[in-house]
Amino acid sequence: MPRDITSFSNATVKRVRSLAQKKHRILEGLFMAEGLRICAEALEAGHVPRILVSRIGDTHELTLRLEREVEAAGGEALRVPGDILEKITGKANPQAVVGVFGFLETGLARLDRSASGIWIVCQSLKDPGNLGTILRTADAVGGGGVILLDQSCDPFSVEAVRASMGAIFTVPLAQADGQDFFTWLRSGPGMLVGASLNTDRDYQGVSYAPPTFVFMGNEQRGLPPDYEAACDELVKIPMRGKADSLNVAVSCAVMVYEVLNQQRRR
Amino acid sequence: MPRDITSFSNATVKRVRSLAQKKHRILEGLFMAEGLRICAEALEAGHVPRILVSRIGDTHELTLRLEREVEAAGGEALRVPGDILEKITGKANPQAVVGVFGFLETGLARLDRSASGIWIVCQSLKDPGNLGTILRTADAVGGGGVILLDQSCDPFSVEAVRASMGAIFTVPLAQADGQDFFTWLRSGPGMLVGASLNTDRDYQGVSYAPPTFVFMGNEQRGLPPDYEAACDELVKIPMRGKADSLNVAVSCAVMVYEVLNQQRRR
Repeated sequence: MPRDITSFSNATVKRVRSLAQKKHRILEGLFMAEGLRICAEALEAGHVPRILVSRIGDTHELTLRLEREVEAAGGEALRVPGDILEKITGKANPQAVVGVFGFLETGLARLDRSASGIWIVCQSLKDPGNLGTILRTADAVGGGGVILLDQSCDPFSVEAVRASMGAIFTVPLAQADGQDFFTWLRSGPGMLVGASLNTDRDYQGVSYAPPTFVFMGNEQRGLPPDYEAACDELVKIPMRGKADSLNVAVSCAVMVYEVLNQQRRR
Repeated sequence: MPRDITSFSNATVKRVRSLAQKKHRILEGLFMAEGLRICAEALEAGHVPRILVSRIGDTHELTLRLEREVEAAGGEALRVPGDILEKITGKANPQAVVGVFGFLETGLARLDRSASGIWIVCQSLKDPGNLGTILRTADAVGGGGVILLDQSCDPFSVEAVRASMGAIFTVPLAQADGQDFFTWLRSGPGMLVGASLNTDRDYQGVSYAPPTFVFMGNEQRGLPPDYEAACDELVKIPMRGKADSLNVAVSCAVMVYEVLNQQRRR
């Protein structure tokens, strides 16, 4: 049975709250996901929360099921009043349920490149909202996974998890430095396609054989020159506007949908 | 010559600060754009700031040029220390320049539908980051404009302006209610294409004649049923993942790039 907790100084409440900060997430290897829907999707994908915090009086069937699963797995289920949920989430109108999960990363070596024709690789991505949106897109195209290179933002931040809309639980995620990635990539089949402004090659003028790795650079700087040089193809999305720029999550989606569209026509 | 202001209680400083709030933006018909690059792009597009706030000691050529243009147009150019810029922008590391501009909306009747083959219509969009990103995409595809229907978020909020990366100044923007929009739309040529989950029609299976109006619904609910019924076509972007969902700015980009790709092949 979940325990009712009404004190802000409860150790578990304080621990969950601390996960809003990256240093505590890294220390504990845990992160927060807000909302009943996302926690239920996590469960669906086989990820049982270690801790579940829900609102006192919540009688939603999914909340009760989550609580049972958490406790059956040896985790902790708490019931708290609205003001504690506000404190935990830092929001005025918090979601009714917060789940705490273990980090979901996998190593490069454990990615199965035959599992999908579409992969996404991001270098030094800075905005967690962009990263979450890219994870969501990766799920939508049935992508094999997202690989983060170098110093990218934290995929387990509240903002990234929220923008992923559950994809953090369904899309394999690996982090690596550039050299390790290139070594791994060239140890098997795979076409590395960089999205770039430094080319006139139209993104629709290239044939994307599976597995295609779509390679996106940092929001401000794009891909570093030596990373562009390591690509099998550099391609550009046509732009007709005043500014020669697209949001990185948008460019990524336009790229991977072209790959999906080509591959589904085969 | 710009005046040096070092007091937080200066009337113009307080007025600029107040524009972080929607009610003050609406009262004054003014909004803030942060950053030298975006202010310079605004100028390029013919929009001179009414007020320009820059950092004391800033010698950037573009800042000086902006100041000259603002004063020549009868506006006000201030120089302030870093702490006042922090206060104005609410950020710890503020941009060196903040411009204040008049609202840029136009009426439906003033949109020229022959100006472009691609238009974007959004209904009750809630997230200003999504709206800004959609404006940026509209610029990139050379779209004719973005039309906001019903209760959408504020395109002149700091977050929307920032995400637009200058497109707020280059992309025509109109707001209307649904009925007025449908009346205007049907008064001339135009194909209205709704992105929807309530159809099996593939988005690549439709021929998009110019001008095509891509119609996106609210983040949670999509388009209302009667709005879907008013569309010439409802189409679906294929999804292969666990969740049947994409970020709305991402779906919009995938849609408008399909329209652009078809129209540039003609």
